Amino acid sequence: MMTIFSKIIKGEIPSYKIAENDQFFAFLDINPMMPGHTLIVPKVEIDRFFDVPDVFLQNWLAFAKPIARAIEAVVPCDRVGITVMGLEVPHAHMHLVPINSADDVNFTRPKLKMEPAAFIAVQEKIVEALNSQV
Amino acid sequence: MMTIFSKIIKGEIPSYKIAENDQFFAFLDINPMMPGHTLIVPKVEIDRFFDVPDVFLQNWLAFAKPIARAIEAVVPCDRVGITVMGLEVPHAHMHLVPINSADDVNFTRPKLKMEPAAFIAVQEKIVEALNSQV
Repeated sequence: MMTIFSKIIKGEIPSYKIAENDQFFAFLDINPMMPGHTLIVPKVEIDRFFDVPDVFLQNWLAFAKPIARAIEAVVPCDRVGITVMGLEVPHAHMHLVPINSADDVNFTRPKLKMEPAAFIAVQEKIVEALNSQV
Repeated sequence: MMTIFSKIIKGEIPSYKIAENDQFFAFLDINPMMPGHTLIVPKVEIDRFFDVPDVFLQNWLAFAKPIARAIEAVVPCDRVGITVMGLEVPHAHMHLVPINSADDVNFTRPKLKMEPAAFIAVQEKIVEALNSQV
């Protein structure tokens, strides 16, 4: 059975897409810790992060870097943090979360409730900042 | 002024070393979330993770992978998670933390208190598991 992330990558489930290349797909986390909280998922369905083939691991942070920069440019924050856990969806993924304190990546606290309009607004800002880097 | 991590890399401050290559140095976090909690630091003194040159970013996860596997082999856990925040020491670093739940990477909770003998015991086990991979 396809994971929810594979369905998002295929467009079978809608998402607030941020970026994509041949290896990765990035989109806003629908249960965000902070506005701009983005997930990066490889286009290969593997549960554990470090089981993902090296050819993905080599490029993962380079794919994440301009996205992190774009989030930092449009979301008020000290910097963008990284979290990888993988305790829920069995498809390796990386969280990019704008943070001001360690509590912003404390995944035990309640997630933000955001309306679709708020997701679209932050999505558009991040994508615009990403495009303006080129 | 050198960061505390540069002093650890140079051996001016002792650490429970796990692994090292020409680009990275890995050692046990002295204020661990869990036994086996390891820090990976690049041998370049740069504050922000995504400001670290691409030649380091490309190899970072490949350096982390066997260490994560070794930690998983010797510390009871579901898997090893990754956290990057960088709110304290101005020298980019990555946490590898064995996790069973999201609370194990909730950095707002009190850290473990461990005696030197306990650090040495887990260090030796991880290094042995690492060497046995080769």
